Amino acid sequence: MTRTYDPGMHIASTFTSEEQLLTNKEGCREFFNGLILELSLHKVGEVYYAFPNGAFTAVICLTESHISIHTWPEHKLATFDVFLSNFTTNNTHKTQTIYNRTLGYFNAVETNKHEILR
Amino acid sequence: MTRTYDPGMHIASTFTSEEQLLTNKEGCREFFNGLILELSLHKVGEVYYAFPNGAFTAVICLTESHISIHTWPEHKLATFDVFLSNFTTNNTHKTQTIYNRTLGYFNAVETNKHEILR
Repeated sequence: MTRTYDPGMHIASTFTSEEQLLTNKEGCREFFNGLILELSLHKVGEVYYAFPNGAFTAVICLTESHISIHTWPEHKLATFDVFLSNFTTNNTHKTQTIYNRTLGYFNAVETNKHEILR
Repeated sequence: MTRTYDPGMHIASTFTSEEQLLTNKEGCREFFNGLILELSLHKVGEVYYAFPNGAFTAVICLTESHISIHTWPEHKLATFDVFLSNFTTNNTHKTQTIYNRTLGYFNAVETNKHEILR
């Protein structure tokens, strides 16, 4: 089937990080907010939820699609994914920027990565 | 690297559907709420956002990770993904159930699927 559209790139990453970062929900929110502003993306809602042990889970809903992160400080790791659609404009470079900057923020050592074309 | 943990299965799907379903944000919310209840998952927040043309975008934050859907009625398609972690219990079967039931609800014809182990 020939597709006449390009849904966009979705990157899913699992990485190890430091407990201090994996339990800093508000620091992560500030980081993502700055990145969304810098990249001129459009947030339409978000959920940040902290678990009793300090782990947090977050999903950020964008008009361009979403970002999510789930941290597991007890395993010293996080699962993170970002998907920006390409329907109205090509956002692939922004998807890669969010991915790279997030791994930078978390001082991450990646254990698993999937870069998929939706 | 030998991993002693299993982050879980993430399924990302792109499918075509009918305009009537791709613009029914509240119908989709009711469907997901029923499925989350039936599968004994734990929702900790959600965002459902409607665009002026009736398209909608939704992310559901679960203690088990997340579900997201972004609809494009102008292209008669949706991008959908579900990720449930396996750290506390093996949720792979539930991930597959959510995937199958969502495609059923949307009377979907799939154009793209990625089933990845995080």
